Amino acid sequence: MTQLFNFDVKARDGKARMGVISTPRGEIRTPAFMPVGTAATVKAMLPDSVAATGADILLGNTYHLMLRPTAERIDRLGGLHKFMNWTGPILTDSGGFQVMSLSGLRKLTEEGVKFKSHIDGSTHYLTPERSMEIQRLLGSDIVMCFDECPALPASVERVAESMRLSMRWAARSKASFGDRPGHALFGIQQGGVTQELRAESAEKLMQIGFDGYAVGGLAVGEGQAAMFGVLDYAPDMLPADRPRYLMGVGKPDDIVGAVKRGIDMMDCVLPSRSGRTGQVFTRHGVLNIKNARHQDDPRPLDEACTCPACRSYSRAYLHHVFRAQEIISSMLLTWHNLQYYQDLMAGMRGAIAQGQFAAWEADFHAGRAQGDIDPL
Amino acid sequence: MTQLFNFDVKARDGKARMGVISTPRGEIRTPAFMPVGTAATVKAMLPDSVAATGADILLGNTYHLMLRPTAERIDRLGGLHKFMNWTGPILTDSGGFQVMSLSGLRKLTEEGVKFKSHIDGSTHYLTPERSMEIQRLLGSDIVMCFDECPALPASVERVAESMRLSMRWAARSKASFGDRPGHALFGIQQGGVTQELRAESAEKLMQIGFDGYAVGGLAVGEGQAAMFGVLDYAPDMLPADRPRYLMGVGKPDDIVGAVKRGIDMMDCVLPSRSGRTGQVFTRHGVLNIKNARHQDDPRPLDEACTCPACRSYSRAYLHHVFRAQEIISSMLLTWHNLQYYQDLMAGMRGAIAQGQFAAWEADFHAGRAQGDIDPL
Repeated sequence: MTQLFNFDVKARDGKARMGVISTPRGEIRTPAFMPVGTAATVKAMLPDSVAATGADILLGNTYHLMLRPTAERIDRLGGLHKFMNWTGPILTDSGGFQVMSLSGLRKLTEEGVKFKSHIDGSTHYLTPERSMEIQRLLGSDIVMCFDECPALPASVERVAESMRLSMRWAARSKASFGDRPGHALFGIQQGGVTQELRAESAEKLMQIGFDGYAVGGLAVGEGQAAMFGVLDYAPDMLPADRPRYLMGVGKPDDIVGAVKRGIDMMDCVLPSRSGRTGQVFTRHGVLNIKNARHQDDPRPLDEACTCPACRSYSRAYLHHVFRAQEIISSMLLTWHNLQYYQDLMAGMRGAIAQGQFAAWEADFHAGRAQGDIDPL
Repeated sequence: MTQLFNFDVKARDGKARMGVISTPRGEIRTPAFMPVGTAATVKAMLPDSVAATGADILLGNTYHLMLRPTAERIDRLGGLHKFMNWTGPILTDSGGFQVMSLSGLRKLTEEGVKFKSHIDGSTHYLTPERSMEIQRLLGSDIVMCFDECPALPASVERVAESMRLSMRWAARSKASFGDRPGHALFGIQQGGVTQELRAESAEKLMQIGFDGYAVGGLAVGEGQAAMFGVLDYAPDMLPADRPRYLMGVGKPDDIVGAVKRGIDMMDCVLPSRSGRTGQVFTRHGVLNIKNARHQDDPRPLDEACTCPACRSYSRAYLHHVFRAQEIISSMLLTWHNLQYYQDLMAGMRGAIAQGQFAAWEADFHAGRAQGDIDPL
């Protein structure tokens, strides 16, 4: 039988893995960083430009899209890919996390979550079944289970209760998703920073059976040390032949540490959001373009970077357009940051393939330990 | 002797002219529309994209650039072309008009204008000599004389007094500009809507002698009928072998009417500003993308347009991203509007070359008289 959705691990170096996820819409090279296209756009970027940075897959947000322009409208218009002009794979989250973080009044029951839109205050309902329906209407290639997760720190009891609800929702998500060749459904491990709960969650997910597995409930306030603590064991609890996705992570060193611990996929708004606020990621650390010391600097952000911001503009220009609040500032800095993230992933893929991840990681940290990091 | 700056009229149709301005930085096909790059960027566009629409030349604003990042800084960084990554010709205005329209407190004397920055309230001084110096520091290819013009309506006495001051400033501008091979200096005709004053102004400018001549002091509140009234005679007062530039104009039908009356160059913020406010120029008239009737419309803005907004996106998508205040909305709508303006110019150039301007103009107006113009 032809595998319409498949994951091949091509190389391993320690726990780090390099591979390829195959989908009907194209291949995803792993470890993969997925730029976030919240409202059917990666902010300040045209899709061709996002692809030019090396991104193979985008993330779309169910919560935002269900509220505006609505999943039904996107379906009538031919699906999210056509709507936003992105031909590659799209992963959609389930809406659960953003209901918690963005919406106002909400009521959580066994059945699902009732909440009010942050846009117009209207009332909406999300359940595992409705989340699956929305993600199907969007035409998502990788669908995420509907889950719930508490902000950390939280009591072990609260985390356990929440995890078990999410596991019941995972079973309902799977039943509702059904059999959709070429589309994948990922389960989401919960359990906070408690190893026993992570193990229990992984067991339940594997009993249900998914095409891929996310490590959820991290990057919610626990800090990098605690996150790495969980990542030291959590990925190992998940099937080795399936992609492992760390949701909502993170800073460059978070990403490197996650890949080192066996993570294959990540997403984060950080490179695009930082592009709009003037934070620039470079091999030498973070540069804050609004700092006055850049106003006469003829150098590019990073002389080794191939993005348009680095090829054609000085730091002085980027400082000027940021201060003048020109849209081109968001366009160029976002492009640069996304290029930095994709170059980071490509660097790790190459290092893993050559069995040189440890040396690559040492270079990565050495580059950031010196140079011109601006105080933020 | 090699002409480093030259204008060839290649075809005429009635008063309309089609030609080429040659400069060391490239050719400018006329009639030409110059997108405005106020603060060293055409808002929401990368320079390559502006060039892709067919623009041969950009306009930069002396007033904005002298205040931020300053002409001296741009000079230290290698000039405006390098700073903003535009290799083609750049025309800069003199700063005079925007001092009047944007700055707060100002004091006008025979010597020049003292004014306060709209950015930080700091005091600055502009004279013909300082304007020439700033435009030289910027590296402008086409430099405009420093002038002054009253908002209309104004008394004939006020307009005459202002025009004669501008003519004295034109002589000082010419003397200060000196001899700069490959760089052009344009004089600016003033005189409001009074034919005798326009004639007097043209005479004085021709006595001084310039590489090109602008019709100034229009599009300042007099209305299209009064503007066309002036354009029925004003261009004829200027040398036929020099480019004629109508400053700050305008809407598509203003532009067509100006070309018909012998204008070769124009600039306006309208296509880029409208791109940010959701006004879309099409062959069928103006479309307001925020109108709810576009929310389910799968059609492009204009099926005949080659811009990315029309090639790859529905009106429904453009409506969505405008309503969601996404930056891509400004990017795509600005690109479309600039493409519309450049296609308009290319259409007129082709029609003039074939002696078909009247038929072309009839088609232009017929297209706009029907179709889907949104109420604005």
